[in-house]
Amino acid sequence: MDYVAIVTSLALLQAFYFAVKVGQQRVKQGVHAPATSGHPEFDRAFRVHQNTLEQLIVVIPSMWIFAVYWPPELAAGLGALFIIARQIYRGAYIGDPAKRSAGFGIGALATGILLFGSLIGAVMALI
Amino acid sequence: MDYVAIVTSLALLQAFYFAVKVGQQRVKQGVHAPATSGHPEFDRAFRVHQNTLEQLIVVIPSMWIFAVYWPPELAAGLGALFIIARQIYRGAYIGDPAKRSAGFGIGALATGILLFGSLIGAVMALI
Amino acid sequence: MDYVAIVTSLALLQAFYFAVKVGQQRVKQGVHAPATSGHPEFDRAFRVHQNTLEQLIVVIPSMWIFAVYWPPELAAGLGALFIIARQIYRGAYIGDPAKRSAGFGIGALATGILLFGSLIGAVMALI
Repeated sequence: MDYVAIVTSLALLQAFYFAVKVGQQRVKQGVHAPATSGHPEFDRAFRVHQNTLEQLIVVIPSMWIFAVYWPPELAAGLGALFIIARQIYRGAYIGDPAKRSAGFGIGALATGILLFGSLIGAVMALI
Repeated sequence: MDYVAIVTSLALLQAFYFAVKVGQQRVKQGVHAPATSGHPEFDRAFRVHQNTLEQLIVVIPSMWIFAVYWPPELAAGLGALFIIARQIYRGAYIGDPAKRSAGFGIGALATGILLFGSLIGAVMALI
Repeated sequence: MDYVAIVTSLALLQAFYFAVKVGQQRVKQGVHAPATSGHPEFDRAFRVHQNTLEQLIVVIPSMWIFAVYWPPELAAGLGALFIIARQIYRGAYIGDPAKRSAGFGIGALATGILLFGSLIGAVMALI
């Protein structure tokens, strides 16, 4: 499970990094708390971070459950794919939110496999 | 713990489904990213998804800790009750946000039992 | 791991308490769902809750992974520091969002140690 632990830590570090970028935009664009919008660049950085957290709520438990029923290396590999997809997503979104689909889609594919794999694995273990 | 794994997967699938509904509303109502409001129907779908994620951050770790100290089947049953409550919550909220209380309350009850049960179980194991 | 379970439960209870405070402000200030802003006091309570959830997404998995590779008591202690920091953060933020830095910073320090400790621990276990 060490690989799954490493990928989890890296995914959380990525979210931490996205949060730092939001904080930088908050200062740079003068968007004062508790506001969560006010400048297009801030808004993009904010949404990238929020959307990544939304995904992590699903990805992390799925990856660990998947790793119980299927090879942990496969779980970690799909988690790594998710991280790469999120980096692509951020790069595209910051430039133009309308171009976020590819990065989003690859990440959602990895998430979907982890999610359905977890469910199928757990059901198969019971029956 | 297979039951807890299945219920976790189903709860995450439900959140994934709620996210898909947000995406559909985004397209249908022409609410373009990074905006997160702009049309009443979009706003409702968005808040249902967000609120469900907020709950999952508490429910999933609680359910697994609960399952260590109490029968896992009870943990899974409370998790299943949470999922049903969220479906009721969504159905009511989409029609009229003011009617969300019943679904919200049943879900919060399940969450509360999992949460306090986890704390009590872990404290009792120490002393 | 009982200490880590207790600290996790307490952190989730704190988030649950922050959510109750948001609900109270929602009623008191007449901010009706699906709105998530509309009155300064509501907005502050809302952001404190949201930001705490954002942090928990990172803190909880990190604390558990950290506890696998380092003494669980240290993981639990850092988690407890996070909870205290979040209480300081809330107290400051409600009064004046510009004063949130100290509470935020102490919490982020605890999170950072848990996060990097997890990554380093898991990598060292592999090599």
